[in-house]
Amino acid sequence: MSDPSETGQSPPNFDQEFQARLRDLFLWRRDVRRFRRDPVPAATVSDLLSLAVLAPSVGYSQPWRFVVVEDAARRAAVRKNFAHCNAEALNQQHGDRAELYARLKLDGLEDAPVQLAVFCDEGTQAGHGLGRRTMPETLRYSVVTAVHTLWLAARARGIGVGWVSILDPQALSQTLDVPDDWSLVAYLCVGWPEEEHLDPELARSGWEVRQASADTVCWR
Amino acid sequence: MSDPSETGQSPPNFDQEFQARLRDLFLWRRDVRRFRRDPVPAATVSDLLSLAVLAPSVGYSQPWRFVVVEDAARRAAVRKNFAHCNAEALNQQHGDRAELYARLKLDGLEDAPVQLAVFCDEGTQAGHGLGRRTMPETLRYSVVTAVHTLWLAARARGIGVGWVSILDPQALSQTLDVPDDWSLVAYLCVGWPEEEHLDPELARSGWEVRQASADTVCWR
Repeated sequence: MSDPSETGQSPPNFDQEFQARLRDLFLWRRDVRRFRRDPVPAATVSDLLSLAVLAPSVGYSQPWRFVVVEDAARRAAVRKNFAHCNAEALNQQHGDRAELYARLKLDGLEDAPVQLAVFCDEGTQAGHGLGRRTMPETLRYSVVTAVHTLWLAARARGIGVGWVSILDPQALSQTLDVPDDWSLVAYLCVGWPEEEHLDPELARSGWEVRQASADTVCWR
Repeated sequence: MSDPSETGQSPPNFDQEFQARLRDLFLWRRDVRRFRRDPVPAATVSDLLSLAVLAPSVGYSQPWRFVVVEDAARRAAVRKNFAHCNAEALNQQHGDRAELYARLKLDGLEDAPVQLAVFCDEGTQAGHGLGRRTMPETLRYSVVTAVHTLWLAARARGIGVGWVSILDPQALSQTLDVPDDWSLVAYLCVGWPEEEHLDPELARSGWEVRQASADTVCWR
């Protein structure tokens, strides 16, 4: 694998065929909650992590910290954390929506062979504060772009990713025994999907519909 | 363009050639601050926005709101906002770092033909709160993945994107006259880059170095 700092190379020409395939990748990237239990090779996980760190970061701060969660007791604690938070979330839904919520599958924590907790190192000195004086949240946003990079790279290998956010982040940080100044950005389930879908699970289940583009773009 | 909600299609096979090109895309996606002034066709901008909304979002909330900034007076106010915040940021750097900071080019606001302010609609009812009770910040994270999707799609068309965060977000929201419950996530300069680079500008200028992967991955 070549070093990204090497110079003297000319930029690739991304042709229309690639652009079309990239669109397919965006379309078929799904939040996966149903995983086969087959293991994902360690080299593949390592490959995905090496791509994730090519993401942009504010001031080149590279604040992403990936915790590969393998210990059975810790994984059980994560599942318990999710079950608790999901029960509370269900309590806040009412009527038909509560019934629908109860039927949704919102995590793949039981089956996903690879689980990654992704943190932001809020204490990092890298980047020397550049670009985050007025918008300090851009440090965490940098971590989000790394998560998304990993997600797309995984899907291009046929591997699914599911982002679980129904968790108590403080409890999760304790479970994983990470430094105090790391804040949780995402907990990712990773593995081979049981099914492939073009439409989001929450659209298919009738939870939400695609928003009209007229509602998302305006001119000033 | 096919509707992403259509069903019955089988998933594409992303082969090794595509995976290698995707890695090139991650490697050559740069934060661009030096733009040619040639216009970007409106259809291309529209195309990029239609790809951006294929990003994942918590609870399928799709909270991204894109403001295409075209008015000359508003653009001038954005430049003034940046100049003010950048001068204050320079004041916080000391010695050699202050000298280095002063030499950095941190925005393309003068030349970028397309400028997009990207907001999160904090008041959206879409998604019915799913997934964001314990981690409400995932609403803004969803907008970040849309920004990153647009960035990658742009680069695949030879178009550069630069994310400007050295801005007072409240002042920017006033300049653009957006609803009170929209929060700024990113201000993007978009256009044809004057130069192409494999290494990040802040690495090339000596501001920061690539972090060792051993410092970003751990096991639990």
